Amino acid sequence: MGYTAAVAGASGYAGGELLRLLLDHPDMEIGTLTAGGSAGSRLGEHQPHLVPLADRVLAETTADTLAGHDLVFLALPHGQSGAIAEQLGPDTLVVDCGADFRLADADAWERYYGTPHAGTWPYGLPELPGARESLAGTRRVAVPGCHVTTATLALFPAMAAELVEPEAVVVAVTGTSGAGKAPKPHLVGSEVMGSASPYGVGGAHRHNPEIVQNLSGVAGAPVKLSFTPVLAPMPRGILATCSAPLRPGTAVEEITAAYRTRYAPEPFVHLLPEGTWPSTAMTLAANTALVQVTVDPDAGRMVAVAALDNLTKGTAGGALQSANLALGLPEDRGLPVTGVAP
Amino acid sequence: MGYTAAVAGASGYAGGELLRLLLDHPDMEIGTLTAGGSAGSRLGEHQPHLVPLADRVLAETTADTLAGHDLVFLALPHGQSGAIAEQLGPDTLVVDCGADFRLADADAWERYYGTPHAGTWPYGLPELPGARESLAGTRRVAVPGCHVTTATLALFPAMAAELVEPEAVVVAVTGTSGAGKAPKPHLVGSEVMGSASPYGVGGAHRHNPEIVQNLSGVAGAPVKLSFTPVLAPMPRGILATCSAPLRPGTAVEEITAAYRTRYAPEPFVHLLPEGTWPSTAMTLAANTALVQVTVDPDAGRMVAVAALDNLTKGTAGGALQSANLALGLPEDRGLPVTGVAP
Amino acid sequence: MGYTAAVAGASGYAGGELLRLLLDHPDMEIGTLTAGGSAGSRLGEHQPHLVPLADRVLAETTADTLAGHDLVFLALPHGQSGAIAEQLGPDTLVVDCGADFRLADADAWERYYGTPHAGTWPYGLPELPGARESLAGTRRVAVPGCHVTTATLALFPAMAAELVEPEAVVVAVTGTSGAGKAPKPHLVGSEVMGSASPYGVGGAHRHNPEIVQNLSGVAGAPVKLSFTPVLAPMPRGILATCSAPLRPGTAVEEITAAYRTRYAPEPFVHLLPEGTWPSTAMTLAANTALVQVTVDPDAGRMVAVAALDNLTKGTAGGALQSANLALGLPEDRGLPVTGVAP
Amino acid sequence: MGYTAAVAGASGYAGGELLRLLLDHPDMEIGTLTAGGSAGSRLGEHQPHLVPLADRVLAETTADTLAGHDLVFLALPHGQSGAIAEQLGPDTLVVDCGADFRLADADAWERYYGTPHAGTWPYGLPELPGARESLAGTRRVAVPGCHVTTATLALFPAMAAELVEPEAVVVAVTGTSGAGKAPKPHLVGSEVMGSASPYGVGGAHRHNPEIVQNLSGVAGAPVKLSFTPVLAPMPRGILATCSAPLRPGTAVEEITAAYRTRYAPEPFVHLLPEGTWPSTAMTLAANTALVQVTVDPDAGRMVAVAALDNLTKGTAGGALQSANLALGLPEDRGLPVTGVAP
Repeated sequence: MGYTAAVAGASGYAGGELLRLLLDHPDMEIGTLTAGGSAGSRLGEHQPHLVPLADRVLAETTADTLAGHDLVFLALPHGQSGAIAEQLGPDTLVVDCGADFRLADADAWERYYGTPHAGTWPYGLPELPGARESLAGTRRVAVPGCHVTTATLALFPAMAAELVEPEAVVVAVTGTSGAGKAPKPHLVGSEVMGSASPYGVGGAHRHNPEIVQNLSGVAGAPVKLSFTPVLAPMPRGILATCSAPLRPGTAVEEITAAYRTRYAPEPFVHLLPEGTWPSTAMTLAANTALVQVTVDPDAGRMVAVAALDNLTKGTAGGALQSANLALGLPEDRGLPVTGVAP
Repeated sequence: MGYTAAVAGASGYAGGELLRLLLDHPDMEIGTLTAGGSAGSRLGEHQPHLVPLADRVLAETTADTLAGHDLVFLALPHGQSGAIAEQLGPDTLVVDCGADFRLADADAWERYYGTPHAGTWPYGLPELPGARESLAGTRRVAVPGCHVTTATLALFPAMAAELVEPEAVVVAVTGTSGAGKAPKPHLVGSEVMGSASPYGVGGAHRHNPEIVQNLSGVAGAPVKLSFTPVLAPMPRGILATCSAPLRPGTAVEEITAAYRTRYAPEPFVHLLPEGTWPSTAMTLAANTALVQVTVDPDAGRMVAVAALDNLTKGTAGGALQSANLALGLPEDRGLPVTGVAP
Repeated sequence: MGYTAAVAGASGYAGGELLRLLLDHPDMEIGTLTAGGSAGSRLGEHQPHLVPLADRVLAETTADTLAGHDLVFLALPHGQSGAIAEQLGPDTLVVDCGADFRLADADAWERYYGTPHAGTWPYGLPELPGARESLAGTRRVAVPGCHVTTATLALFPAMAAELVEPEAVVVAVTGTSGAGKAPKPHLVGSEVMGSASPYGVGGAHRHNPEIVQNLSGVAGAPVKLSFTPVLAPMPRGILATCSAPLRPGTAVEEITAAYRTRYAPEPFVHLLPEGTWPSTAMTLAANTALVQVTVDPDAGRMVAVAALDNLTKGTAGGALQSANLALGLPEDRGLPVTGVAP
Repeated sequence: MGYTAAVAGASGYAGGELLRLLLDHPDMEIGTLTAGGSAGSRLGEHQPHLVPLADRVLAETTADTLAGHDLVFLALPHGQSGAIAEQLGPDTLVVDCGADFRLADADAWERYYGTPHAGTWPYGLPELPGARESLAGTRRVAVPGCHVTTATLALFPAMAAELVEPEAVVVAVTGTSGAGKAPKPHLVGSEVMGSASPYGVGGAHRHNPEIVQNLSGVAGAPVKLSFTPVLAPMPRGILATCSAPLRPGTAVEEITAAYRTRYAPEPFVHLLPEGTWPSTAMTLAANTALVQVTVDPDAGRMVAVAALDNLTKGTAGGALQSANLALGLPEDRGLPVTGVAP
């Protein structure tokens, strides 16, 4: 045993998933749980699936209630993480599932979020080149956006190997939990079931500059990105269909080899056997991303598809994976690699 | 009153949708209904929602049982339409919902279907330039594939106006009914619900060459296409997210104007008000396609989205719309323009 | 042509369904559309599937805006219908889709609704004995609750024939649209999909006394009812599984005969062929109720199941059916008998 | 570490769930996996969510391939378990997820299954009075049917305390995975989504006599049961709405007390706080059953609702729970008590 972990935003979907995973982590003890408007109520009212924590009472989200833990996971609306992190001091491992410290480019931040840039923390996508080094021993982690993890894992091996041009088209089918728990008219079940609908079209989604940042970082050139998320009638899961123009002379074998090399040692990202394509159902509740890639010679493009659970590998599982690295624990400690199906 | 219509393949999804629409068509009388393995059984066993036809008995699909009608709708596996059409004679209006007579390029046909090319019939997408002329008075109609109608309507106005380069990326989220009624392991409800999965990736889908044919026909140049369909947990609907590189200097206003000009007179295709994006739920059971378009300046691409009901505007409604034109009836006769929601 | 119809509450689900049906009714012209908080906005923002009405602007719901029509359909929160109806005068046909005038028993009303009883209007379930007589020529109609229509149609033929004891257990699986469009936490798509959940358990649902009223009215004795609605992940549809103890000596043939006799002449209620059981999918978007019945000798109970679309036969279609009767039109005028499937 | 476990029927839904749970069980090592028609193929083709077992090859289901393990889990079509168990010898713990050894009444077996009665094994529902005693040390376990576990847990405390009459009405909403993986027309996604449909109506379902057996066993009198399962559009989960006539003078407090007493010590069955009702989503992927109970004085009935995951507590989790008891392990060893939501 060793570490105590607090969760801020415990009544929401990301908070609930963090708690589900923490309950199974052998080195973590769950400490204070906090919430905004739900402070004072039982966790069981909000997360009835977390039976062992049903009688925990939610505290208010303040630096005071969160103090005294080894780790603090923040699952808060953006703009709130900076002030809390500062008060928690440099020795607490703060893992922010929000957006505040993801972007290095202050202009991109301000354009997409409309508030002053808070800074940049080590980026919690261990599979990216250099990420494990920056996560080792850190006390601050910026967990990537769920669409960002999916698109990045689908595309970066080819971009890093310069097998495709630095431009990409990503269409990401996503479940509804990414939109959070707050009831909004277009998220009501009657509207969602039976319907597919795009949002943030034309580069307007806030995950857009973050995908660009990741891909440009490995491609050695600024990447042009067209990204469209599409809401689909399922609670969880993201399936990103990604393509990029082939560089002249690139063979499909080179591409497959680049992905195989990159992902063979990864505990949580798997290149599927040839001819098998990922589905979101294969990844439900697991910290697993599944990837497949091919080439369309007539189109002159590589097509890569990645699937993951937006709440697990896309948020809470990725957060815990990075926390393991920050604490010097085995990266895969306490994380599920098998999904729930059907 | 006037025309008698037979439906071959009446026990399947396309056949059922044809019958639903024919029941409401003021100029059509429903004649013989045929099926393959289900011949001899009551229609009510297969299409319990078609209450007024519940006691109709399905005949075998032969030229004999289909003879003597003014119209024959074919909703058959590909490869069967040619022989039947030949025996029905040149005076019968034959509307083929299958693929046999869609492609003009015999090589493309053989590559994708693996059988000899049967020929080419007037193409049942009235919104395409020149299509109404070729449909007027014809006695043979090749109804487009459902993905093809969606992608074509999303892209052709910009392609025809040469506002974008002749290359496109299309990712089309689709409901399960497009895969038909035959039970297959990956289509079982337990597998489908909660999951998004791609298929035919890398240009392998049979609708690929047909989209290329349509777009190349208006673009004045061969169009390069990357097309990926994605199965989503909903019975009906296709949402195609399409993009293409902007030609240098193209302004968003030019693009919007091209779509507005093209679709303002159309009874079944609507450009939505600015800022509103289509969803499949908006089109359920209607012969309506909804379109929206924008520009992503950072990506240098136009993004266009179209939604429709794959069984209505995507198959049976489109078939009836073309049949109206072939018979000299008003194009919109008997076709629903309002959907069912939620 | 002849009648002008206003719809109050046009932005909601019941209002939208009324408009969908009115658009296809040959004797109705759609007049003023009103709303509460959405007054001033385009209908297209709220009902994008009603393409022909997209540019209609919603007026405020007042007696003034609703005046001057032959018919006024009220799809309002309960408690608002009485005042408006009074101001509209006795010559306007007012069809109330709300609960205000359904119950004859003032005590039951006050116990379940907590407000003073407004009165009782002719009851819009034409299939009930005596209902058509009271609806003919009326200028006031109380449309039944959706669960009430379903359970009543499943049970009343056996109750009226005194083939079962005057007590019943009803468990009704229902889609989410019955809960309306207002976003509430438990109705968010992420919560609804993949889940079945009961509500109003133990006789607490407001449709409880209304079912009792209908069944007691035909049974000639007060009926004891256990009613439990269960929310299921589908937008539309109610499937009521109903059972009642057999009276000593009742044979299954007597029961089947009672249902056949009752429903053979009905345009919108169908007893299915033996061995076929209703599903909600068979009735989507149709004004159709499907019924099947059997006997469980070991349990000593009759089991009857009815399925319908809660928004069509369960609300808006039933309303229009009653309006047809009130106006002296053919009862089935303008009403769909075929559903949309799959 | 200690026990090796084989799974027969590893390519199906029950087999897959057994493997998911076994992977997390600290005392079990997964041995041979067998299948019928899929023998010879990789498990990854059938259970892509079980990433660590993807490359295991399925053996044929024979006593030979299954021999040499401490435990053998059988997830086979009924009728096959007896012969295999006999050949495995008395020292192997055989846990049968099929029906063959559930029923004590040979007549009931033959009536419902149409084959000779194979016998009766200790019954794997540890929460039933006396069950733990008969499971301790046994080498044969008959795992209950999923509907049976749900209905029994909802009703038996009141039946055992004789607070209700020995008769019950059960309507159980169920996901599609209970019907297995074999593709059948009515289980295709297009048919299932958006639809609720009953089956086995009138006492015809094979779980009927098993529920009667369990309840009669505790009630001290033969229980009359009306049981109707209803298929709903969700992959997993059963929600059983159950009611029974109150014995004269029974107070709600007595009933609540009976359930509280019964379930307070149970690790996997929870009586929810007053006013909270179970939903299937609360139990997804957990070995948890949630129960709530109330009284409807007007109906004179108790209403009890239980929810669980049909594949976990309803099949594979219940099997493992019983196996733990048979082996003398702590009953809750390796079993998940938290669910996956949303």
